[in-house]
Amino acid sequence: MEAHIVTIGDEILIGQILDSNSKWLAELLNLSGIRVKQITSISDSPKHIKDTLHASLGEYDLVIMTGGLGPTKDDLTKQTLADFFETELVYHEEVDKRVRKLLALRGIEANEMNKSQAYLPKNARIFTNHNGTASGMWFEKLDTVFISMPGVPFEMKTMFEKEIFPAIKRHFPTKSIYYKTVMTQGVVESHLAMRIREWEENLPPFIKLAYLPQPGIVRLRLTAQGNERETLKEAVEKEITKLKKLLPDEIFGYDDIALEEVVGKLLRKKKATLATAESCTGGYVAHLITSIAGSSDYFKGSVVSYANEIKTGILSVDQTTLEKEGAVSQEVVEQMAANVKDKFNTDYAIGISGIAGPTGGTAEKPVGTVWIAIATPDKIISQKFLFGEHRGRNIRRSALQSLNMLRLQLI
Amino acid sequence: MEAHIVTIGDEILIGQILDSNSKWLAELLNLSGIRVKQITSISDSPKHIKDTLHASLGEYDLVIMTGGLGPTKDDLTKQTLADFFETELVYHEEVDKRVRKLLALRGIEANEMNKSQAYLPKNARIFTNHNGTASGMWFEKLDTVFISMPGVPFEMKTMFEKEIFPAIKRHFPTKSIYYKTVMTQGVVESHLAMRIREWEENLPPFIKLAYLPQPGIVRLRLTAQGNERETLKEAVEKEITKLKKLLPDEIFGYDDIALEEVVGKLLRKKKATLATAESCTGGYVAHLITSIAGSSDYFKGSVVSYANEIKTGILSVDQTTLEKEGAVSQEVVEQMAANVKDKFNTDYAIGISGIAGPTGGTAEKPVGTVWIAIATPDKIISQKFLFGEHRGRNIRRSALQSLNMLRLQLI
Repeated sequence: MEAHIVTIGDEILIGQILDSNSKWLAELLNLSGIRVKQITSISDSPKHIKDTLHASLGEYDLVIMTGGLGPTKDDLTKQTLADFFETELVYHEEVDKRVRKLLALRGIEANEMNKSQAYLPKNARIFTNHNGTASGMWFEKLDTVFISMPGVPFEMKTMFEKEIFPAIKRHFPTKSIYYKTVMTQGVVESHLAMRIREWEENLPPFIKLAYLPQPGIVRLRLTAQGNERETLKEAVEKEITKLKKLLPDEIFGYDDIALEEVVGKLLRKKKATLATAESCTGGYVAHLITSIAGSSDYFKGSVVSYANEIKTGILSVDQTTLEKEGAVSQEVVEQMAANVKDKFNTDYAIGISGIAGPTGGTAEKPVGTVWIAIATPDKIISQKFLFGEHRGRNIRRSALQSLNMLRLQLI
Repeated sequence: MEAHIVTIGDEILIGQILDSNSKWLAELLNLSGIRVKQITSISDSPKHIKDTLHASLGEYDLVIMTGGLGPTKDDLTKQTLADFFETELVYHEEVDKRVRKLLALRGIEANEMNKSQAYLPKNARIFTNHNGTASGMWFEKLDTVFISMPGVPFEMKTMFEKEIFPAIKRHFPTKSIYYKTVMTQGVVESHLAMRIREWEENLPPFIKLAYLPQPGIVRLRLTAQGNERETLKEAVEKEITKLKKLLPDEIFGYDDIALEEVVGKLLRKKKATLATAESCTGGYVAHLITSIAGSSDYFKGSVVSYANEIKTGILSVDQTTLEKEGAVSQEVVEQMAANVKDKFNTDYAIGISGIAGPTGGTAEKPVGTVWIAIATPDKIISQKFLFGEHRGRNIRRSALQSLNMLRLQLI
């Protein structure tokens, strides 16, 4: 069972963007026991597309194409596919209607270019794009399945997960695989590896472990391959039970759940409310929390007190304390958390102040110094961190750390 | 002058890492007038490598390979290259000495595997790796130049910049290239294409246009190829002058600058300050602004008034207006902007309230309805938008739209 991933379009070839679509698809396919043998990026010239399809015919079981399906006139992919699969483009009324409806929801009138998106190859199985105007297509020729999807990552991923991947699994039954991803926060990869080394070395041979780090988060993926899915699941769960004892505070969830979603669920369960008072994170904690649908049920809001006068004014932080201890101090973040909790009348609150960088550091408080406080219904806890020199990472690490500290108060 | 970039090894094929080497190489080559026609990731099986090299022979002027050259035993690339170029591996004493010296500097004794790295194909031109143990190689066959480099990004990049790229430029004198990316906000790709169609159709044939859309942003890249760089630059700039007349409000900058950076520069230039009052964007506008280093010079802070009681409490929005008009209304966002400007004592302010979704929509105000107000030193402007059904995109589009509205008040 071998697959070929093909991206069509110039963005990758001119080095403008990283090919994140192929990485995402390759990971998913491999985890399902489908081996990706080649990934190819080609231009959207009809000849190049046809040559690539022709070379794949019979060589691969599955060819997955992304890109080349936008509404602008330089996109010739669809006509090329029709030629290669010896068919013609025909008008699909239901696609036209869906595109019009989707655009109408955005207050946009469909134009000629959008209308052309309802013309699709006659012998293709059509997949609906719920988030955009270009449809997905499935062709079969000489035992090879060819799939074409739009290149916009968000549109492609939703379409693939919801419709195409299940169809692939039905078409190609594979060996059993069970995998689970353990989400951890607060320990860097190398230290995590040391803490769980003995556990890792004693994993049964049919379970593989992969470290998948992101800024502030390390995902640990356990993959078991064998005959019986239930046996695999049991073995993986047994190992995770052991792992939880080694990382009691760090594991916040499973299978790519976001920390902000875990925190949201805990708040909802407790019928508790939250506010944040943010300095160096500049609203990023509030943004993470409100990226979760339904967060208005538990999140009341935030004060981003970037300037000191907002800390003392809107948040009523004591002027003398601020001058004496500095904005990045235990006293100030504790007051920020306590006062926003009081003013917003919530059960919990987060206060954060730090030096995101690249400037503003001192010998005593270098760039990356961050104080975080959590106010709960009955106490305030706070802790100091050193997150390093990179501004974007400092912001992300601070926000995730504060969410995990809050989570530990909610369980 | 066409090139093929080939990465060898499994990391990319299993979706473990993004192919950042190819992106880096593609960008550099394109900007030097060498067109990258294909990027291919293959496994390190000898057959797959040979098939790929064979298919490239005579098809490309230049084939650049990365990866497959480490000291571990599964790396058969070098022997495969020797076979393909009909030669044998021979011992290179100077390479052996350099590898030993390099390892000694790291306190490591060279072992058998390292010694094998001094065996290299006889007819290859060898390039020194100053940062690792695997050498670079240059082969020529039937007018195609084949280059093999290690896959470790840091080793590859140094070797390429210092030695291989200059050698390529000497071997292939190339045409000049000039390109510029025009950043636009507020018009979707299909509508943009209609608005600039006549201009696009009248572009001189040596200037190519590419649409590069992202949520809320469409980048337009103009690439000119010819003999004289100065002439190309002039021609591109002339076309951009015309384009600016067609998109007077939408073009916010050039060459991948972020809108939040443009706004920051304008505020700094005016010595003006900013605050935001955010509901549906949940702090995302504040986050974008504070992602720019030095933003504390002009950004004072934000109130994220997710709950209505925060709008009336902290932001002093009139309770009667809120009840009568609803939270997503012109009157409420205008009060949000005016009041946060007043309370934070700033020159400018943004107010945003909308229905991010997926729930909360009504027939009159469907999901995606967003009101944005901008308060300036002397007036308040406001506008209603419809951004569609997807929560994450609504948040991003609302934030970018508000930043562009603010930008237009600052120029």
